[in-house]
Amino acid sequence: VTLVTGTRWLNEQEQAFWRGLVMAGKSALADVEAELKADAGIGFDDYEVLVLLSEADGRRLLMSDLADRLVHPRNRVSQRIDRMSDRGLVRREKCSDDGRCTFAVLTDNGFALIERAAPDHVRVVRERVVDLLSPEHLRSGIEIFDRIHPPKPL
Amino acid sequence: VTLVTGTRWLNEQEQAFWRGLVMAGKSALADVEAELKADAGIGFDDYEVLVLLSEADGRRLLMSDLADRLVHPRNRVSQRIDRMSDRGLVRREKCSDDGRCTFAVLTDNGFALIERAAPDHVRVVRERVVDLLSPEHLRSGIEIFDRIHPPKPL
Repeated sequence: VTLVTGTRWLNEQEQAFWRGLVMAGKSALADVEAELKADAGIGFDDYEVLVLLSEADGRRLLMSDLADRLVHPRNRVSQRIDRMSDRGLVRREKCSDDGRCTFAVLTDNGFALIERAAPDHVRVVRERVVDLLSPEHLRSGIEIFDRIHPPKPL
Repeated sequence: VTLVTGTRWLNEQEQAFWRGLVMAGKSALADVEAELKADAGIGFDDYEVLVLLSEADGRRLLMSDLADRLVHPRNRVSQRIDRMSDRGLVRREKCSDDGRCTFAVLTDNGFALIERAAPDHVRVVRERVVDLLSPEHLRSGIEIFDRIHPPKPL
């Protein structure tokens, strides 16, 4: 087949890796998300927005920086912030007089929500992922994930 | 905080791993899925169903076995098979006279679709994931993913 089509098919190891990445990510995220929804009434994407804002200086991030960190197209991040703003978890704020850029800012309500949700969330992340692995697994995994999705510095 | 709430918070490495897993999985899958949709008109979940059936004996799997492999609740797999059946890619078949179990069977149309879609799909999986990694990364990743989502034998 290689001669005819020029395709280098995946060998067994390569296929196992790719499927494993997708399946492990999806199955862990499904469990983590189920707990978050039941406990805090929000999905993992919204939770990540709250956490990223809570860790940033002044509990705020440029919308464009937020989009980079979330693997989302920018217009979808904007819609997400609108929905979270309707629930009082974040607010938009112009970052200069000419209004050419916008901050997403964590509200006190948003901060209270992660404070309340975090302990059970962390417990599930430990049970489903982190506590199943050795420090060597963690180190090696971070190296792998950085190659697939290089982190952008703030 | 640990003393008050009993929560073992994630350290920097643990948090980097967990976020990396989610982000790497999502970002690679988004690119792979965009190509599949543009090229073959199907999402990655449907593609995976076709591939799993194409690799199975007689190009058929029990619905329950398929569900185990897809990290989906069983009722959602059933709906997925209905939709794919409407498009002529798979068909349902009773596996015994009493009709207590059902096979999903790959049709010739379904097989033709993966044959056509596979070369470009594999190219993107290589570019976005597999070719970015060493054999040692692949070996270590498979070990990690197996702990998070243990594979079930057919």
